[in-house]
Amino acid sequence: MKIDELYALLRRRGFLWPTAEIYGGAQGLYDYGPLGRALKRRLEEAWSAWFVGRSWDYYRIEPTEIVPEAVVRASGHLENFTDPEVTCATCHGAFRAETVLEKVRPDGIDGLTPPQIEEIVRSSHVRCPNCGASTLSVPEPFHLMFDLPFGVRGGERAYLLPETAQSSYLAFARMREVGRKALPLGIAVVGRAYRNEIAPRQVLFRMRAFTQAELQIFFDPAEPPGAPGASASETIPVLRADRRARGEGSTERLSAAELVASGLPAFYVDHLVHYYQFLRDVLGYPAERLRFLEKSERERAFYNRLQFDAELHLESLAGAKEIGAVHYRGDYDLTRHGAASGRDLSVVRADGQRVVPHVLELTFGIDRNLWALADALLGVEGDRTVWRLPPYLAPIAVGVFPLIAKEHRPFAQHLAEELRSAGIPTEYDEASSIGRRYARMDEVGTPYCVTVDAGTVGDGPERGTVTLRARDSKAQERVPAAEVAARISAALRPPWPPSR
Amino acid sequence: MKIDELYALLRRRGFLWPTAEIYGGAQGLYDYGPLGRALKRRLEEAWSAWFVGRSWDYYRIEPTEIVPEAVVRASGHLENFTDPEVTCATCHGAFRAETVLEKVRPDGIDGLTPPQIEEIVRSSHVRCPNCGASTLSVPEPFHLMFDLPFGVRGGERAYLLPETAQSSYLAFARMREVGRKALPLGIAVVGRAYRNEIAPRQVLFRMRAFTQAELQIFFDPAEPPGAPGASASETIPVLRADRRARGEGSTERLSAAELVASGLPAFYVDHLVHYYQFLRDVLGYPAERLRFLEKSERERAFYNRLQFDAELHLESLAGAKEIGAVHYRGDYDLTRHGAASGRDLSVVRADGQRVVPHVLELTFGIDRNLWALADALLGVEGDRTVWRLPPYLAPIAVGVFPLIAKEHRPFAQHLAEELRSAGIPTEYDEASSIGRRYARMDEVGTPYCVTVDAGTVGDGPERGTVTLRARDSKAQERVPAAEVAARISAALRPPWPPSR
Repeated sequence: MKIDELYALLRRRGFLWPTAEIYGGAQGLYDYGPLGRALKRRLEEAWSAWFVGRSWDYYRIEPTEIVPEAVVRASGHLENFTDPEVTCATCHGAFRAETVLEKVRPDGIDGLTPPQIEEIVRSSHVRCPNCGASTLSVPEPFHLMFDLPFGVRGGERAYLLPETAQSSYLAFARMREVGRKALPLGIAVVGRAYRNEIAPRQVLFRMRAFTQAELQIFFDPAEPPGAPGASASETIPVLRADRRARGEGSTERLSAAELVASGLPAFYVDHLVHYYQFLRDVLGYPAERLRFLEKSERERAFYNRLQFDAELHLESLAGAKEIGAVHYRGDYDLTRHGAASGRDLSVVRADGQRVVPHVLELTFGIDRNLWALADALLGVEGDRTVWRLPPYLAPIAVGVFPLIAKEHRPFAQHLAEELRSAGIPTEYDEASSIGRRYARMDEVGTPYCVTVDAGTVGDGPERGTVTLRARDSKAQERVPAAEVAARISAALRPPWPPSR
Repeated sequence: MKIDELYALLRRRGFLWPTAEIYGGAQGLYDYGPLGRALKRRLEEAWSAWFVGRSWDYYRIEPTEIVPEAVVRASGHLENFTDPEVTCATCHGAFRAETVLEKVRPDGIDGLTPPQIEEIVRSSHVRCPNCGASTLSVPEPFHLMFDLPFGVRGGERAYLLPETAQSSYLAFARMREVGRKALPLGIAVVGRAYRNEIAPRQVLFRMRAFTQAELQIFFDPAEPPGAPGASASETIPVLRADRRARGEGSTERLSAAELVASGLPAFYVDHLVHYYQFLRDVLGYPAERLRFLEKSERERAFYNRLQFDAELHLESLAGAKEIGAVHYRGDYDLTRHGAASGRDLSVVRADGQRVVPHVLELTFGIDRNLWALADALLGVEGDRTVWRLPPYLAPIAVGVFPLIAKEHRPFAQHLAEELRSAGIPTEYDEASSIGRRYARMDEVGTPYCVTVDAGTVGDGPERGTVTLRARDSKAQERVPAAEVAARISAALRPPWPPSR
């Protein structure tokens, strides 16, 4: 679907809408409605089970989103977290430099200074996207962090965190005390991050307040976390930096063993494969739309030793878009916060030597993936609109309908209550025709519907049975009402492994 | 326990700690660690099941916390959301007026203007709590909202919401479209609210960023939501405003029927009783420590027609403290937002007449109740420290221990994985003595422990059985390992009703 169609459907069905919609909305801010919240929650839980559930030494914390200035000074955000901007002297419009230059510099402008960008603007004769004038220039960088007056009379400054990762670095010392003192130690946050984007757009893809799921794995570089044992033969779609530099833009499928042989650390490859399996097997993204794009040294932040962005081709946004990433950040973060806070964040090895742990960061955009699930799995098929969500992610697992409200309501309502009590996300609906009710469930991804009819409540051979209808096949079968809960519960079981 | 002891225990066990702790913390901000996050999540889910689960027409949404200025102008916060402050000309300290005057005005200073407060400060000769000088004065009110530079170059203003309720009022029009168009319609938010408190204190009781659970029930005043049918004989502890005005400070137990007879609307009493049952039966607060305190007309916000605060006596804070409230807000909110946004928020009755829905607000402080659960249910009993949390709220439901790590580890780890896969919050621990491990589980509220020993893995009659130990009774029994999951799952079943 096109972006406008998809957004209209999601808005109409109450997945999301602009914040303060009755006031005309607020740019880059969205509220999740009941179905959006439910889908978002299941996505968060799936991520957590898959990544945080991988070790007894991985933990989820829930930090606040506000930090004092010292934190963002140490992290480098206060100095560097800016987005080069282009302004027009004629219409006074302001635009992201990367967007204005995307045709001229398809690889982006990461790592360039404002004077270098100004030079590109000048030499390429780019015109203002708003008024068409050739009066663009590059002002001082625009700061992406929101700052707050803090404390009595606002005398201190505080900041809304632009990435949840910082909270995990701050928590490292405390978590060493609280946990088993073992490395690798994982600290995960699913929480809000905030960026005062110059030009919020593409609905959930460039928001000013958004939800990230990030796992920071702290490890001794001499004993990195994991290696692709059983997964050595698993192939993943990658686009390496060296091929990109040579202008070869096509994705290759390489096995974990080949990636290790090419020089990537085994622990890093292990996490790429594990991440890929999550996207393909848990979220159900089509494998041919996925790729891991390696960022070059110039593109990635200077402290990142390795960076592969997980990208999915989105029809609605007409291209491959970043939905997550795997960053090998080395010892940058703990070294910076250790120095700035005066707290020694190194750990002692068995031989008495001290080492600052390295960090492998797995990051995942919750909002972007919610959108991506709609883009990749929701579509028009003949005369129906169907969202082929994996059942364990569906906001509603089962719709319960009385065929005729007046006659079948008590049985249907009772069954709906029973399913809900069994922990199954249930919707009860008695409005409109049965076909219309199935259609409403299809487009929000509900895998099952149950209809109560005259057979159910009558005295004939169908007494006590209901029609169970499957979204994907449209197949209908007659099953005893008493068996519906067990049938659906079994179908909701997620595919993540019962153990590590 | 005293506040410091309780906080020390919660910090040591990783329930919570000050934000940016390695930098010395940030006043009024806390991060939840693994156990605190788990407890918080279960508290949120219990609240949601009890209150939002009460009707198919009640929904949870997840709005952003940032709103444009027009919203807080319409809500009245921009003008009125201030906290009278007292400053000292000698030491330049700033204090909440209510705190400085709490001995002189035990009923608080709600509704008084700064000049009236200044007069009380002068006439009562209150001294500065910091330096003792008699040089206190009352400056312009201190604004409690955090404002943000928003948009390009910060040209717009936005605000962090000081209460989640506003998001539900903003969502009303959209939710009428999305839902069944029926009234009562409930919109619930469990989310962050932010207040730049003058003097954050009492750990989780006066924070600058905190989590509220709020349900707004929109209804036609001609058809209010519910009445205490089966609960008419349930008595609840109340302290009425008229008795307080007469200086009678003791709580009475009144039945729902008596409260209705005294003139309170039946729907309002119904919700007081339902709220009380949640505090007593779901959270397990001792009934004798609870009360609903009615606020007088002067004390409550002018738009509130009725307000009862739920209070719990907290040993750690040496008094009865507000943990939630029931507000009858009339049509204030929808009328204000309707007028300011230009969007008609009235609904059409069957007879064609238009009416602006009234709002009944149920509000509940998640952080405060997390603290209250510790205060009320965690204590030293002889030689042990035990947190008698209801099992379905416990961060860890079962601890699994090998008696001797080397010998019993594989069986114990396998069992722990199995329990975790069955959805039971499980901890695996092989460190220190078995008594020490039981003690560590007791103090974080874990209702069950399972120990794997020589009998389990041997060839004798105890083969395949484990020791199941209950927190509350300390009773130990030998049960087949294969039955542990079912036993514990059954004990975790919450007491909320399977249907409405």
